[in-house]
Amino acid sequence: MTIKLYDLAGADPDLRFSPFCWRTKMALRHKELVFSTLAWRFTDTAALAPSGQGRVPVIVDHGQWVSDSWRIALHLDRAYAGHPPLMRSEGERAHARLAMGWVDTLHGAIARIAVLEIAHLVAPQDRAYFRASREARFGMTLEAVTADRPGAVAALGIALHPAEQTLTDAAFLSGPTPGYADYALFGTLMWPHVVCREPVLAAGSHVAAWFERMLDLFDGFARAAPTVRD
Amino acid sequence: MTIKLYDLAGADPDLRFSPFCWRTKMALRHKELVFSTLAWRFTDTAALAPSGQGRVPVIVDHGQWVSDSWRIALHLDRAYAGHPPLMRSEGERAHARLAMGWVDTLHGAIARIAVLEIAHLVAPQDRAYFRASREARFGMTLEAVTADRPGAVAALGIALHPAEQTLTDAAFLSGPTPGYADYALFGTLMWPHVVCREPVLAAGSHVAAWFERMLDLFDGFARAAPTVRD
Repeated sequence: MTIKLYDLAGADPDLRFSPFCWRTKMALRHKELVFSTLAWRFTDTAALAPSGQGRVPVIVDHGQWVSDSWRIALHLDRAYAGHPPLMRSEGERAHARLAMGWVDTLHGAIARIAVLEIAHLVAPQDRAYFRASREARFGMTLEAVTADRPGAVAALGIALHPAEQTLTDAAFLSGPTPGYADYALFGTLMWPHVVCREPVLAAGSHVAAWFERMLDLFDGFARAAPTVRD
Repeated sequence: MTIKLYDLAGADPDLRFSPFCWRTKMALRHKELVFSTLAWRFTDTAALAPSGQGRVPVIVDHGQWVSDSWRIALHLDRAYAGHPPLMRSEGERAHARLAMGWVDTLHGAIARIAVLEIAHLVAPQDRAYFRASREARFGMTLEAVTADRPGAVAALGIALHPAEQTLTDAAFLSGPTPGYADYALFGTLMWPHVVCREPVLAAGSHVAAWFERMLDLFDGFARAAPTVRD
């Protein structure tokens, strides 16, 4: 019995752009676990009822429902202790959680780049919900949120500075091999990678080179994911 | 021959408020190294000439000048490998550097709280330099920068969210024992702790409790530092 993952999809069921679901998919591959994904839409909250909440990622692992990408990561290390660890110690867990908290601060800048493109890609039944919830969050129309793309791309570049500095002399944010901090940032950057027609990472940057290395992991698992450019 | 540290001081030579010098002092204590500090002022750039640059922290270690808190940390681990390590692996170095990069993003919010108080505390010969350089950086008067203290304190609380989350189930940002990520954030928070008359951390927060634990380290080393409230 393989693990099932509810994974956010657009109108095209193969377009998978949730940053948090990407964290979980990379964590599952790191753990060398077999899993299948189910295309899920924002308005499909009934399907997640057994998880006690309405957002993805959610996994069903031998009948056990686990939600939230961080709680899923902890669950996987606990339930599959014989598989490669995502985090090997309390220290690694603390560092990964701090890194994840930093990564989450990038989401505002990415939304300013990508949120209108996403509004056009979500499933028809999700469109009204998506626009209303995001416009309420930003307190303005999605057109206003995304009015200054060059400014938002520049702001993202500045916000990525801690990763850029770290990657000047480390192959990955976790050191010589990738770890949960890498999956956290990679998941967040897969979001614009899948939905945007134009690149968001500065060409020649350490982060851009690292992103290519991340796309190559696990036999090019994430590189094989369909994007709007396909 | 003990290590000498050039440490930023105010008009009162015992008032030591540089976030970067605090990182170095905590790192030196962690390494169990004996050191002495020299009160340094912003305009004392000539004293640092052998370091090839004009900012503190700078250490002189057996005749070798090393500047920049991060480069000093790497130097200490390399030169004193038999002492307790600040970072034990490439992975720990990468995580610490990412954490430090995140911590540096807090400095804007702290400046909006503290920069005018600092302008009143710096040595007389530093006052014109300090005001001119900071007003140029912010593009406004220091009075304008600090006009909304409650807003700046709230913004700092939000910006500290990654640490608040991490500390919900870890004693330190580095896990069960303090490490360089802790010294990075602690150094940054010693800055308002030394110069502000009112607290900047939310009472009852995990970060506030952690800050007290950090003040207790090394026989209450940082707790013994004079502040403007003494």
